[in-house]
Amino acid sequence: MKHITGGVTAAKGFEAAGVQARVKYQNRKDMAMVFSRTPCRAAGVFTSNVVKAAPVIWDREIVEKKAAIHAVVANSGIANACTGEQGRQYCRQTAQAAAEALGIPEDSVLVASTGVIGMQLPMDRITEGVKALAGVLSDTEDAGREAAEAIMTTDTHSKQAAVTVELSGKTVTVGGMAKGSGMIHPNMCTMLAFVTTDAAISEDLLQEALRADVTDTFNMISVDGDMSTNDTLLALANGCAGNPEITEKNEDYRLFCEALHEVNVTLAKMLAGDGEGATALFECHVIHADTKENARTLAKSVICSSLTKAAIFGHDANCGRILCALGYSGVQFDPEAIELFIESEAGRLLVYQNGSAADYSEEEATRILSCPEVTALVDMKTGEAEATAWGCDLSYDYVKINADYRS
Amino acid sequence: MKHITGGVTAAKGFEAAGVQARVKYQNRKDMAMVFSRTPCRAAGVFTSNVVKAAPVIWDREIVEKKAAIHAVVANSGIANACTGEQGRQYCRQTAQAAAEALGIPEDSVLVASTGVIGMQLPMDRITEGVKALAGVLSDTEDAGREAAEAIMTTDTHSKQAAVTVELSGKTVTVGGMAKGSGMIHPNMCTMLAFVTTDAAISEDLLQEALRADVTDTFNMISVDGDMSTNDTLLALANGCAGNPEITEKNEDYRLFCEALHEVNVTLAKMLAGDGEGATALFECHVIHADTKENARTLAKSVICSSLTKAAIFGHDANCGRILCALGYSGVQFDPEAIELFIESEAGRLLVYQNGSAADYSEEEATRILSCPEVTALVDMKTGEAEATAWGCDLSYDYVKINADYRS
Repeated sequence: MKHITGGVTAAKGFEAAGVQARVKYQNRKDMAMVFSRTPCRAAGVFTSNVVKAAPVIWDREIVEKKAAIHAVVANSGIANACTGEQGRQYCRQTAQAAAEALGIPEDSVLVASTGVIGMQLPMDRITEGVKALAGVLSDTEDAGREAAEAIMTTDTHSKQAAVTVELSGKTVTVGGMAKGSGMIHPNMCTMLAFVTTDAAISEDLLQEALRADVTDTFNMISVDGDMSTNDTLLALANGCAGNPEITEKNEDYRLFCEALHEVNVTLAKMLAGDGEGATALFECHVIHADTKENARTLAKSVICSSLTKAAIFGHDANCGRILCALGYSGVQFDPEAIELFIESEAGRLLVYQNGSAADYSEEEATRILSCPEVTALVDMKTGEAEATAWGCDLSYDYVKINADYRS
Repeated sequence: MKHITGGVTAAKGFEAAGVQARVKYQNRKDMAMVFSRTPCRAAGVFTSNVVKAAPVIWDREIVEKKAAIHAVVANSGIANACTGEQGRQYCRQTAQAAAEALGIPEDSVLVASTGVIGMQLPMDRITEGVKALAGVLSDTEDAGREAAEAIMTTDTHSKQAAVTVELSGKTVTVGGMAKGSGMIHPNMCTMLAFVTTDAAISEDLLQEALRADVTDTFNMISVDGDMSTNDTLLALANGCAGNPEITEKNEDYRLFCEALHEVNVTLAKMLAGDGEGATALFECHVIHADTKENARTLAKSVICSSLTKAAIFGHDANCGRILCALGYSGVQFDPEAIELFIESEAGRLLVYQNGSAADYSEEEATRILSCPEVTALVDMKTGEAEATAWGCDLSYDYVKINADYRS
């Protein structure tokens, strides 16, 4: 497996575009399109929030009926959530506009929205935007980047990842783009993420691979504990790589899953590190837990703790808050048995052992916690399971961004 | 039932004191004592965090063996949590010092600590503090206030409440004090709260009344989602009111529970409204839910949402975030059926209905949300159950307080 540059246009046969449609933002791209002339198999995982955005309802229906997919249309600025019957009609009209512009069936168009909840889409601008997107589709790296930029809301940079892997002698590419950066606490997948691949793979296996992988990638990140109404992760496979179609869990399937995981985990970490107001990516790595599920629960409890996140922002090795968060996670353990380290590129430091704080240098701790990526390493000393979760620190800017988001 | 002034010294036979012991803070009271010469029945509910502070372990053992209680000693500044065997010894030494100073048995002394986790207590100062407290005990209202001030950490004001109720012709008083204001997300009770009463009541009924009442009071508040290692709610009953002892669930028991609830709910709301950095008390009142448990879950999900709390800080009627938080609570419901109002002393406004935002004035909404106490009223339109949860807004100061708490 090899990391390459690019995102959704990295795989053969995929085109993309991003344009300014003035859906809500001014002077920036706010609509994106991904297109494959060759029909794609699609897989998707969506928010488990009871309040689902209109495009989530639309996409889920299409993915479940296994329709051949040609395009995804996404807008930022308005989420088309809590918009009732009107919102669902607008969603269909968006797909219709794309179908017309691209000469494809309406049910081959997936739709995604992100932004303010409870506001209706300006449909005239959306349909104009769709036409503009169809006119500038391209398979270049630039086009992929422009699409990734167009789906940003409060993100400070766009997120792309791509890898290649050899399957039975053919080079297969998996690429993707994603956006955060608030209301991020996925429980099936994250806000918006799109993965494209030229692999030939059956729908069922693509769906299974995607669903299995989110457990340790997008479901292990949190920015603020708020699970969005719009969480959508889509994977499109158009088969253009020419590999023998993957229809069983053979070696090619295993390699494909590794490539998919690499793209997903890279995008997931990018989302966490660029959480609203974040100054650092905060990782919690739990090792030697009794079960995988407990390791996940413990790791996620730590990266979700507001007090721990504020301490990370202050470069303060407040191990008590990490212990506290482990303790209320719901997992049973002996607090006197575990060990806690903090680490970053600046080093690793033991901060808690034998039921109380270790004898460490606060200056050294602050130096370690001043890096842009910091990790709490928790050794549970009981078993062989491990898990990692990713979040970010809690800063003044998180409050600033969210106190006046709609204005 | 009648609200009266005062706190832990309001009930007959209770004395209190607060002194400066320089446990960690300088130039402020940081140790408190509550004392009853007449032995008390005690009830307690404690944190369900796996990581329990030493005093929680000490108190739980004493309450469970139904020892007669004479005193509570509390310190602020250092939590005596994650302090291992040493911390447990210090806890016992604190009780021993109080027993000696007051001429009472060691196991009649309950102990409580709040403050930084992972730091050992300076035992010389603690024992000096205990002696000083014993020397200035008084049953005056001032003494109760000084004790309430001494248990504060990041609280901006002390919290006391007291009521009287007539039981079989005798006036019974229930009073209490509590402190917040970070790491508040109780799940059995809150950080530190002490309730005293001169009622005569059996231990079992006192415990049952206390445990039942926290479900709708201290367990319904949250400041930051972090459940403390030190959560302790103690109730002491010395029988000095001379009422016929309550030994069964008769009318007197019902009236006593009402009085206890009034003190608990008053203290709980004070804790939420004075959450770290808070500028407003944020209440969520869920009505017409199918079950009480679902009503509680929905209400608590809303007041815990970081995004909603930041919007409240910004006086922004972002109903989408409230809908979102209801949606990920785990409770199933039809988002198109419910109605959402915001209200405060400035008025009430319908903001969401029929699956989308209502047609309301943003100016009116901002006016309502600019009050010091604001409520989200959620009408589920399905049943008869209701519940209320209390939290606060999320401000810059929450981050500021917690980024450098230890320094």
